[in-house]
Amino acid sequence: MDADFSAHLKAAMRRMPSAVSIITTRHPETAQPMGLVASAVIPVTMDPPSMLVSINRSSSAHATIVTAGGFCVNLLSVAQHPLVKLFSSGALRDRRFADDIWEERCDLPGLRDATASIACKVRHSISFGTHDLFIGEVTGIMLNDDTEPLAWVEGGLARIVAFEPGS
Amino acid sequence: MDADFSAHLKAAMRRMPSAVSIITTRHPETAQPMGLVASAVIPVTMDPPSMLVSINRSSSAHATIVTAGGFCVNLLSVAQHPLVKLFSSGALRDRRFADDIWEERCDLPGLRDATASIACKVRHSISFGTHDLFIGEVTGIMLNDDTEPLAWVEGGLARIVAFEPGS
Repeated sequence: MDADFSAHLKAAMRRMPSAVSIITTRHPETAQPMGLVASAVIPVTMDPPSMLVSINRSSSAHATIVTAGGFCVNLLSVAQHPLVKLFSSGALRDRRFADDIWEERCDLPGLRDATASIACKVRHSISFGTHDLFIGEVTGIMLNDDTEPLAWVEGGLARIVAFEPGS
Repeated sequence: MDADFSAHLKAAMRRMPSAVSIITTRHPETAQPMGLVASAVIPVTMDPPSMLVSINRSSSAHATIVTAGGFCVNLLSVAQHPLVKLFSSGALRDRRFADDIWEERCDLPGLRDATASIACKVRHSISFGTHDLFIGEVTGIMLNDDTEPLAWVEGGLARIVAFEPGS
């Protein structure tokens, strides 16, 4: 892949608005919680109820998702934007699960005030290039009404404003 | 799955901000173009450069993606919002590719003024429940600078506003 092609593709991908999620998991033996910030998360189907996440195999949480066989998708609200830095900086790793903002959700760390928090059991995984795609069947859902979803676009945090055609 | 669980999951998925894409393809023998509106589109990895789309097997474009072995992800701009209705309503099917807004991109229909248009060759597919997940290697990219990405959230169209932490 030449450098121009790579730069174009990165630019195209940055233009895709997406949710900001923290994917969490917990080691079944040590009970150690792990988490990472992800934007590559999609619903797959309602039958069976399922979500797909794309995880870089070099990320520290990857092996724990495999061992635990489960993950929780926590969709961040705008008010939770400081968690993006907390879960992106390796230096802050020890503080990630220190606060009283987590609760158990199907034996996984669920973020209490997330816009939505969706616990999944891994049913299928596919390796492709540098990433593993995990398809999880949904085992638990928590919703918080009246929270505003946080988004990514162009490499930065964003909020969403309803668009009225004609306006 | 009980009705409450299903309703909760649908509500959670509606809270995920996402890009609005028109996925296009072209039958290799009849040259018939096909397309559908999709929100379940993610980048997979840069090595190889790849995208994943989730397509309901009951959609009319599904069989053509399989036959053609390729698809093009056209990320809509805010100005292109009328295309959502055009590609969602079966009654408007004949008008979808009538306008002079399409051009060839790696033998696939590319939307000329899309925020980005990414042609992909299918490298892998996975059936899960009602959907097929297609992983495509990127073969061509077109970008239009100074276009504003269109988004979905809560079942409606939306635009994205940069969020400054602290504001």
